[in-house]
Amino acid sequence: MSGKIPVGILGATGAVGQNYIYLLQNHPWFEVTYVAASPRSAGKKYSECVASKWLLGANIPEGIGDLVVQDANIPQNAVGKCRFVFSALELDSKDEIKALENAYAGLGIPVVSNASAHRWTDNVPMIIPEINANHVDVIKSQRAAHGWDKGFVAVKPNCSIQSYMIPVYALIKAGYEVKRMFVSTMQAVSGAGYPGVPSLDMIDNIVPYIGGEEEKTEKEPLKIFGTLEGGKIVNASGPLIAAHCNRVPVINGHTACVSLEFGDKKPSLEEVKKIWAEFRGYPQEQNLPFAPVQPIIYREEPNRPQPRRDRDEDKGMAVSVGRLRECPMFDIRFVGLSHNTVRGAAGGGILNAELLKAKGYLA
Amino acid sequence: MSGKIPVGILGATGAVGQNYIYLLQNHPWFEVTYVAASPRSAGKKYSECVASKWLLGANIPEGIGDLVVQDANIPQNAVGKCRFVFSALELDSKDEIKALENAYAGLGIPVVSNASAHRWTDNVPMIIPEINANHVDVIKSQRAAHGWDKGFVAVKPNCSIQSYMIPVYALIKAGYEVKRMFVSTMQAVSGAGYPGVPSLDMIDNIVPYIGGEEEKTEKEPLKIFGTLEGGKIVNASGPLIAAHCNRVPVINGHTACVSLEFGDKKPSLEEVKKIWAEFRGYPQEQNLPFAPVQPIIYREEPNRPQPRRDRDEDKGMAVSVGRLRECPMFDIRFVGLSHNTVRGAAGGGILNAELLKAKGYLA
Amino acid sequence: MSGKIPVGILGATGAVGQNYIYLLQNHPWFEVTYVAASPRSAGKKYSECVASKWLLGANIPEGIGDLVVQDANIPQNAVGKCRFVFSALELDSKDEIKALENAYAGLGIPVVSNASAHRWTDNVPMIIPEINANHVDVIKSQRAAHGWDKGFVAVKPNCSIQSYMIPVYALIKAGYEVKRMFVSTMQAVSGAGYPGVPSLDMIDNIVPYIGGEEEKTEKEPLKIFGTLEGGKIVNASGPLIAAHCNRVPVINGHTACVSLEFGDKKPSLEEVKKIWAEFRGYPQEQNLPFAPVQPIIYREEPNRPQPRRDRDEDKGMAVSVGRLRECPMFDIRFVGLSHNTVRGAAGGGILNAELLKAKGYLA
Amino acid sequence: MSGKIPVGILGATGAVGQNYIYLLQNHPWFEVTYVAASPRSAGKKYSECVASKWLLGANIPEGIGDLVVQDANIPQNAVGKCRFVFSALELDSKDEIKALENAYAGLGIPVVSNASAHRWTDNVPMIIPEINANHVDVIKSQRAAHGWDKGFVAVKPNCSIQSYMIPVYALIKAGYEVKRMFVSTMQAVSGAGYPGVPSLDMIDNIVPYIGGEEEKTEKEPLKIFGTLEGGKIVNASGPLIAAHCNRVPVINGHTACVSLEFGDKKPSLEEVKKIWAEFRGYPQEQNLPFAPVQPIIYREEPNRPQPRRDRDEDKGMAVSVGRLRECPMFDIRFVGLSHNTVRGAAGGGILNAELLKAKGYLA
Repeated sequence: MSGKIPVGILGATGAVGQNYIYLLQNHPWFEVTYVAASPRSAGKKYSECVASKWLLGANIPEGIGDLVVQDANIPQNAVGKCRFVFSALELDSKDEIKALENAYAGLGIPVVSNASAHRWTDNVPMIIPEINANHVDVIKSQRAAHGWDKGFVAVKPNCSIQSYMIPVYALIKAGYEVKRMFVSTMQAVSGAGYPGVPSLDMIDNIVPYIGGEEEKTEKEPLKIFGTLEGGKIVNASGPLIAAHCNRVPVINGHTACVSLEFGDKKPSLEEVKKIWAEFRGYPQEQNLPFAPVQPIIYREEPNRPQPRRDRDEDKGMAVSVGRLRECPMFDIRFVGLSHNTVRGAAGGGILNAELLKAKGYLA
Repeated sequence: MSGKIPVGILGATGAVGQNYIYLLQNHPWFEVTYVAASPRSAGKKYSECVASKWLLGANIPEGIGDLVVQDANIPQNAVGKCRFVFSALELDSKDEIKALENAYAGLGIPVVSNASAHRWTDNVPMIIPEINANHVDVIKSQRAAHGWDKGFVAVKPNCSIQSYMIPVYALIKAGYEVKRMFVSTMQAVSGAGYPGVPSLDMIDNIVPYIGGEEEKTEKEPLKIFGTLEGGKIVNASGPLIAAHCNRVPVINGHTACVSLEFGDKKPSLEEVKKIWAEFRGYPQEQNLPFAPVQPIIYREEPNRPQPRRDRDEDKGMAVSVGRLRECPMFDIRFVGLSHNTVRGAAGGGILNAELLKAKGYLA
Repeated sequence: MSGKIPVGILGATGAVGQNYIYLLQNHPWFEVTYVAASPRSAGKKYSECVASKWLLGANIPEGIGDLVVQDANIPQNAVGKCRFVFSALELDSKDEIKALENAYAGLGIPVVSNASAHRWTDNVPMIIPEINANHVDVIKSQRAAHGWDKGFVAVKPNCSIQSYMIPVYALIKAGYEVKRMFVSTMQAVSGAGYPGVPSLDMIDNIVPYIGGEEEKTEKEPLKIFGTLEGGKIVNASGPLIAAHCNRVPVINGHTACVSLEFGDKKPSLEEVKKIWAEFRGYPQEQNLPFAPVQPIIYREEPNRPQPRRDRDEDKGMAVSVGRLRECPMFDIRFVGLSHNTVRGAAGGGILNAELLKAKGYLA
Repeated sequence: MSGKIPVGILGATGAVGQNYIYLLQNHPWFEVTYVAASPRSAGKKYSECVASKWLLGANIPEGIGDLVVQDANIPQNAVGKCRFVFSALELDSKDEIKALENAYAGLGIPVVSNASAHRWTDNVPMIIPEINANHVDVIKSQRAAHGWDKGFVAVKPNCSIQSYMIPVYALIKAGYEVKRMFVSTMQAVSGAGYPGVPSLDMIDNIVPYIGGEEEKTEKEPLKIFGTLEGGKIVNASGPLIAAHCNRVPVINGHTACVSLEFGDKKPSLEEVKKIWAEFRGYPQEQNLPFAPVQPIIYREEPNRPQPRRDRDEDKGMAVSVGRLRECPMFDIRFVGLSHNTVRGAAGGGILNAELLKAKGYLA
């Protein structure tokens, strides 16, 4: 035995599920021992279900291809097979996902979820570990409310916000109120899964629309910047965010153009760069395995960050920023970039699980 | 003889020059009779100079390939060969371009220019015919200042602003003050000419930077919205514009995400659509050959406009807009799109020439 | 009334069906009056069914969007509504398509089909009008066999072979036996319909496989080069063809690299070019509306033909060839290109219908 | 001191030079200590010269950015600074490159070259280490002919042939004569360097031509399959190769469609797969650092290999093959793929240097 914590993946055959499997290879703490997907995959070998739809490099990681896929709709199957699960469930209704994630939690299996279903449940933490690691303590009241002993649900936010949330938070943490933000994103096709975006839409074209994405981009930061009060997360009242979200012909890496308006106290451009360079959060302090050494990497080149060149910084977990300059309307503006399927999805989920373990919730 | 006005193209072998030649095929008023480029092309047939670098469909238009290219640095060569010239000059220094364009004008040859050199000369009109057709009358004081009889210089603005200037102007014209604008563009590679942007930068990538483009995007609208006073164009004091400009893997068609803040009086979304649908300008009133019948086309589909699907509307001269919705920060937001090498470059230049002829300046 | 022949489109909402509707705008002989698709579209307006999936430029052609879509599985509905139908049916089984196309024919409604179901029915002609216009006369025995009076089925071959069949046939017609051909194709994504090929497969990638395509590419030419004998088409015994078929990130335009081995008599490169330049077929002789004036366009540039630059030659109906040179193994080699959704699909189908009308089969 | 062999890079700022620097990070035997480029770069820091043109991930490897670039035209500068050089020289004339590479060799500095200048010099080995490792012994007569003691020149072949040479050689080595080969390539844009292929040629397009590439593809294999006789490499008399070379919108990874005709003895498809699976060459026997463990990886999926999914196999040094099937004209056909800037350029050069060291030529 490896001595690692056995983990399961719900929605293991989809794009996000594949990313979890890919990124968890050789993880020092966790080991994938359980894969579950839709009923029609159940009973088949994982390699058979994925076959020519494996998206990440040439080969399915060793040891995974031979796992027999279980029916994700039957949480009981997971009992005894894994200590917690990563949820990348893709069901038609959010209510079904909520119910199913709760069912796992009810069986004593914590759920670290990528799904959006529970993001607005007020006793479910929505975590970016560098920002709101303390929110995980809402799990206590979540457990109390449900009468759960070991199980819980924790979620991560949408991929579209990962390219600027840490840089913005670093400024807030340094004492600068951010009042308003304008964000315009250019998002990679991997964010839509596979088959996802048709090539007829992405050759010699961009699509200035992604269903539901602008709403998430505008609202989720308020919960993440919120406070834990009275057993639930109370949303922050700001910043006010306006987002335009676009799909572009890029495989991986979401880019965001951001303008920020501060409160009365405004940092100089040099101060901003210094704050970003020096910023460290809980994952860095605890030296979590998936934590990027330096969460925010500033690039001085005039034409960076760029998705293909910068998305893989520090295993895809660092956020790259550049083009910091004065904004003629607000105070500053910059370009942020993060790897949407690593930091923005499975890698972010793994860092959440590491945080939860470090905080004692996955004991 | 065709009875058409003979015109010359300066910088005829470059990307913009080729567009002029392509678009002027079968023009009812103008006929290309003179092509000029750099000294090293001079003396060769046009077809020889362009050879495998012809960018627009399969073939060089008939009758043009056999024209002998002249040295654009020798304005005297053009005398008697064409009544006016379209300038698509690409020289190293703006001062050289200014001097050369002035030299043509001084020889009685009007210059309708794409170059940016003269955009900030206060007695040179920078025209979008649907917006500031009246600015052409500054030519009178321009001629007086130089002692020119027939010659003059008129310019068009940068391609990056064409996808939203007419929609914004339509609202201003309808009585709604626009105080502030956020603009984030996704611009096509054809805007950089040929060879232009390397494919290594545009496969699985975007570049969040185009040199000088944000400055132009923020400042040029102020001159276009300006007024003709005392023999020069006096810039408007607003709107205040903040722009983020990006290069994306699209052949033709610049897309802009725009948020607008109005003054005290704010139109409803329905009013905005009505204003756009009904907007007509001088080119439409005069039925100029290159005028789009309906300058602003609103698309109700949630994911439009898109460059490949919408750029060619009305021969590439109409602006397509869509996704009109409330902005949580300003008042409204929308997506605009225009064909950057047609409306945004050569087609816009041709419409300018048509306007100048209609106003009697190319007699 | 327009006096034009009313025609129906089966599979009208799919990619090929849309192409028929797009290309038949303003056709001098035919007018779309009837659109049919799957039962789930039946009863809705065409514009409603297609909505944001319209693939061809900005807008659905006027007059079509309001047509009520019929159930293509009920041939009786078409009686009296159209004189013949273009079939772009996409059913799961070829046998179903055969049966359905026969049902239309049995009701007196000729079927000009893009579907592959009937390509190997020996009394159904598979036509490229410049090559085997005479094959349409097999319709007489087809009608006799079924006891049909007016109806019949005629088909067109696969899109992958259109970029070299006419150039090869021109040489055969000029007296040069072609014994062996090596073909390697690079095919556009539009050939797979919509949503078709995922963008995750076509950004920074090619796919060296298209299911069933190599078999069609190797076999269909033998029927087209065959002879009408005893009331059926007897396949030619050659040439022997070996094909490699690949999918590349191109919207429209299939490119083929071809090497040819001749029999004892071998043309010089100059003869080949002359034969291609002078080649004309039945559609040119009859001046059919969709016939390209010059079916084979040879390009002297070293790096042509290219899909984006050459696919639209003569409304997308001409074949562009280039790079003719000696082959160190066989005799000659060249690159051929044709527009896969025009010449290779709907445009080719329309030319077939024009041929059938000219030959009296659509009276 | 690291105890590693100090090496220099000629043409260090270009695309291939950058690849050498990138791949030599942490090499167990070699360490980059010397970078040389054109006179206009000389005297500047490497990081300054490359600046925003660094092509490989986010950052220039540590320790290299601060090296002062030397003038590659002055071989004397390299004396004492490095024990041998990798040449990625890009001069206008092959004669200049030959002379310059000879000058380095004459100063006792061996040259392991990517340049094509010396590929046809009969006492210069052109090496793919798995195939013709023994050819390096021609260096003895090369040294004798020039009166060189320690210096020599060794080259690698063109990137276009790397995707099928090892698979074909494995069959030859197993006793199957290969008489004729058809090859059609789809080559990545990185093969043309930076800026290289314009994006206007690679969006919604392919280019069926790469200057000089087909000639190299057809001829270079004959030298590699040749024999060392009388102090020079005598070319093999076969196989006869016919190549079509195409440029496609892929960043890295050349794909080749190949048909093979054997002599009288023909392997079954299963034998071919077995031969490929078991093939090992000198680099594997010697366990050279850059040697792929398994040089030929066969993929059973019907649609593989694909550039983005398979190019990075075994650090980009393995060749991926797939789609092995009967050829209706020759005997077998398949698709081969290799990483053009790793196995096909800098990685291949490094493996050559490792071979030369193992054989005692870099002592």
